[in-house]
Formats: sequence, structure tokens, C-alpha cells
Amino acid sequence: MTLLVVLDYAAVFVFALTGALVASRAQLDIVGFIFVASLTAVGGGTIRDIILNRDTVFWVSNPTYIGVAAAAAVAVFWTAHLLESRYRAILWLDACALAVAVPAGVAVALATDQPGGIVVIMGITTGCMGGLMRDVVCNEVPLVLKQGELYVTCALAGATAALIALALGASAPLSLLICAGVTFALRAGSLAFGWKLGVYKAYPPRQ
Amino acid sequence: MTLLVVLDYAAVFVFALTGALVASRAQLDIVGFIFVASLTAVGGGTIRDIILNRDTVFWVSNPTYIGVAAAAAVAVFWTAHLLESRYRAILWLDACALAVAVPAGVAVALATDQPGGIVVIMGITTGCMGGLMRDVVCNEVPLVLKQGELYVTCALAGATAALIALALGASAPLSLLICAGVTFALRAGSLAFGWKLGVYKAYPPRQ
Amino acid sequence: MTLLVVLDYAAVFVFALTGALVASRAQLDIVGFIFVASLTAVGGGTIRDIILNRDTVFWVSNPTYIGVAAAAAVAVFWTAHLLESRYRAILWLDACALAVAVPAGVAVALATDQPGGIVVIMGITTGCMGGLMRDVVCNEVPLVLKQGELYVTCALAGATAALIALALGASAPLSLLICAGVTFALRAGSLAFGWKLGVYKAYPPRQ
Repeated sequence: MTLLVVLDYAAVFVFALTGALVASRAQLDIVGFIFVASLTAVGGGTIRDIILNRDTVFWVSNPTYIGVAAAAAVAVFWTAHLLESRYRAILWLDACALAVAVPAGVAVALATDQPGGIVVIMGITTGCMGGLMRDVVCNEVPLVLKQGELYVTCALAGATAALIALALGASAPLSLLICAGVTFALRAGSLAFGWKLGVYKAYPPRQ
Repeated sequence: MTLLVVLDYAAVFVFALTGALVASRAQLDIVGFIFVASLTAVGGGTIRDIILNRDTVFWVSNPTYIGVAAAAAVAVFWTAHLLESRYRAILWLDACALAVAVPAGVAVALATDQPGGIVVIMGITTGCMGGLMRDVVCNEVPLVLKQGELYVTCALAGATAALIALALGASAPLSLLICAGVTFALRAGSLAFGWKLGVYKAYPPRQ
Repeated sequence: MTLLVVLDYAAVFVFALTGALVASRAQLDIVGFIFVASLTAVGGGTIRDIILNRDTVFWVSNPTYIGVAAAAAVAVFWTAHLLESRYRAILWLDACALAVAVPAGVAVALATDQPGGIVVIMGITTGCMGGLMRDVVCNEVPLVLKQGELYVTCALAGATAALIALALGASAPLSLLICAGVTFALRAGSLAFGWKLGVYKAYPPRQ
């Protein structure tokens, strides 16, 4: 099992947990949990594979991924009530999922010899699109676009860090590890300490 | 004309009716009716074809499908006022569309020799995604995710029934018929008699 | 640089401006501006390329497009406060973007020898889908579906005009110019003078 496959499985599992938690906030039934969990879990990677025109989407050639997402959904269905704050759990699990999905996207783009810009975009796409689909479909405010938090920025920084590490001669696995670390550190810092970039503030209009 | 083509046409036509009815609730003009009807009608099958990486999306190789969707939209534009309850019509037409779209998705997946899990997922995708896109774009509460109703469950059960029928030696057309029957029976039972699975209910949080 | 490439760049740049303006209404940070701008800018063309099953999506083979979108986003981040009405600016820039994106979609479909119906649909898809994704993701009322305005109609008329011009013997560049002119004239007329088609009005239900 290659590192790429491990990253894909981990991202699928953790994103599925966040999807199932969002489904619990919408009071869906068990099949609804599995549906939203699967959409969240494989959404970003599916868009990545379609845009890169890979021969088969990753979970079509290996449906075990959907089984993993379904297992995560079932686990959440029976245990979500044990959580003190489901929203807080969603935030932190989503941060973990982002931190494994971004290197998963980077790894696939590197494996297909894409230029640097596309590698970064595929990291962002794989990391952000599943959660965005989850939030749009379930009518939550998208985490990706929440004001005053770092989100896409974390994915951008993580993917860029991987490219820099590779350029400096680091091995591929080490670069992906650095990518995951930078992504998680920035997102966790934003959640825990309120790190952010300046948001656009409307100045008074021209007279 | 093969059974697969008949199923695709029927799903396109009935989903287009539901899309046009949603457009009428949003008070769009005739071109808006055709746009929403087409999106709903071919949305699920388009995602199916792209994920399965078929050579051409079904309606690109045969634009008649879009003509069928447009005809359904025009028909609704002139007749929707005859309905006593447009929302009730949307619910029941959507149930019919689901019951033809799921076997259409199953048939395509079988024709490309996918494993069982992917066959079921393609049935669900073809059945549910067009309506989901219609509801997200028109800002309706997605039928797919309505609390306390069976929807994805019907598609899942129908597609699974087709696989079981095939495994028991039924012919492909009979299996698809069983798929349509199971899907429609469950969805109709949910609409008419309130059949449902238990939804997730939040327990009080841990102290 | 062919006409097709010029159209794609122009559509990407102007759609990115609209995406960044919507991001400014949502008070995002600079990376959020670039994310929404890029999604808007390449969304329609990406769906077009995927549906037509082109070998590579246009911006994957040439990431400069994303650079153009990012530049537009940065420019808006620093200058949006100079506008008297950002919403009005979005409306008119979106009209310009529509008028270049529709011929861009038509040109690609013609280059791959699609039948007339698909050419028109690809014009509509390229023109409308980027803005639709922008509005759905940022939770704005989709311009595409705003009641009492021409939008999809403009794209439909523009693409049809290009086909008629070609059939009458016009050169490809002239036909695309006519397409852009018709699209912009209709959309501008709708914005400035309230041109519209009759919308669906519910009659009282049958007794």
C-alpha cells in the first residue's frame, strides 16, 4: 500500500466523519448519513481525478473507499450523542481531513507530472471541494468561505510548502508530511488562536 | 431502441417535468423553465457518465434528450396552472423519475462491467443527483435530504434488488423492472403512508 | 494566439472580477477572493471541457488562466472601495463576461465538430455555469435565475446567432463577434431597459 493510498483512505475516513456529523445536525436517517458522508469523503478527490482526466476515478477502481466512508457514517450515527459539541467536532475533524486531503491531492498531481501551479490547485481542490459540497448541499455556511478564518490559505500554504521541500531536495514522503504539517498547523492556529488574514472592509464609497 | 435508451428517455422526460414545476414556483420565464428542466433531466446521468469516464456523455452523442427536456418544459409552462398543487405534483413526478433513473444508472454500470458496489452507487447517482442539483440551484429544500422520508434509501434498495435478481438468474430487463418497482414502491409508500427509517435524534450531551 | 484563446482569457478575466466583487460582499480575505474569482472564472469552461471529454481541461494545460484570475482578484481587493455600487458593477461586468464566454464555448464546440444543438448548449454552459457556481457557493440569488430578467435567453440567442451567421457563410471570427454582440445587446437591454420575456404566473387552481 503506497503512501498515496494511505493518504486517500485517511482523508476519506475523516471527511466522512465530518459529513456524518453535518447529517446528524440535519437529523437525517442512516442512509442519509452514508450519502452525505460519501459525498463529503470522495467529492474533492473525484473532482481532482475528473479535472486531471485520470483513467478512472479513485473510488471507482476501488470501491473500498465508499465502504470506509459508510463505516464512518454508521459509527457517527451511533456515537454522535456522546459529543459535547458536534459543531466543534466538525471543525477539528475537518481540519484533520484537510491536512490529509491536501497532500493526497498534491501526490496525485505530482504522480501525473503536472506543473507547480496545477499541483497547488489540485491540493486545494482535493482539500476544499468535498467540504464545500457537504456544506452547500446541507445548507450550512461553507467552512471554506467563513469570514475571518484561514481555510483555503492553509491548503495553499501546505501545497506550496511541499513544492518548496521537493525543490530543496526532500524526498516525496517527507514533502507530503511537511505539507500535512503546515496545513494542519495553520488551520489549528486559526481555530485555536484566531489567526487570520485581513478581510476586505468596504471603505465609504467615492463621493 | 434498447431498453437502456427507453429508460434514459423516460427519466429525462419526467425529471424535466419536475424541473419545470420547480421553475414555475420560482416564476421564471420560458427559457428559465427549459434551463432548469434540462439541468434536472440530464444532471444525474451526466455525472454518472463523467465518473464512469464514458467516451461521450449520453446527451452529447444524442442531443434529442435535450429536445425532450425542452418539450416537457414548454408543456409545463402552458399547463402548470391546471394543477391543484404543484408541490404535490413535483413529489409524485419526482418519485416516478427516480424509479426510471435508478435502473437507467444500473443498466449503464452493468453495461460497462462495474463491480456490484459501483452498480449500486451509479443507480443512486443517476437517480438522486439531477434532483439535488435542481433543488440546490433553485434554493428549495433538497428532496434527497428531507427529514423523515425515504429517498436515497429507495434508490439503494432498488439497485440492490436488481443485483440480487441478476444473481438469482433473472434476465437483465426483468432485473431492471424489479429495480424500478422496488424503488417506486418504497418512495410511494414513504409519500403516501409516511414510511421512514429512524432519524438521528440528539441525546442530551455527556455531563 | 488564436481568437479562441483570446476569448477564453477575456472571459476568465472579467468573470474573475465578478467573483472577486461577490467575495468582497462576503468580506473574505485575499485568498478567499482568489478562490471565488478562480471558481467563477474557469467554472463554466471546465464543465464544458469535461462534458465534451477534451483531453485536458483548458486551464490545466495552461495554468496562466489561473494567474489571470488571481490578478483580477488582487486588483479588486485593492480597488473595490472605489466603486459606488458593487452590485451594479457585478451586474455589468457579468454581462461583459457572459458576452465573451458564450462565443468561447461556441468556438470550442465548433472546433470539435459538434452538432448545432450541442454548440448552443456549450455556449450556454460556458456562459452561465461559472456565475451560477459563484452565486450558489456564496449564497447570492443566482443571476442566471433572477425573475424578470433575460440571462440564459441572451446566451441562447447569441449562440444561435453564431450558427445562423455561419450557415449564411460568415467567417468563424465574424460569427463569434456576432454571437458576442447579440448576447451583450440583449443582456444590456434587459439591465438598462427592463427587457424580459413573460414569466410564469400561477393562474388560480382548477376548482
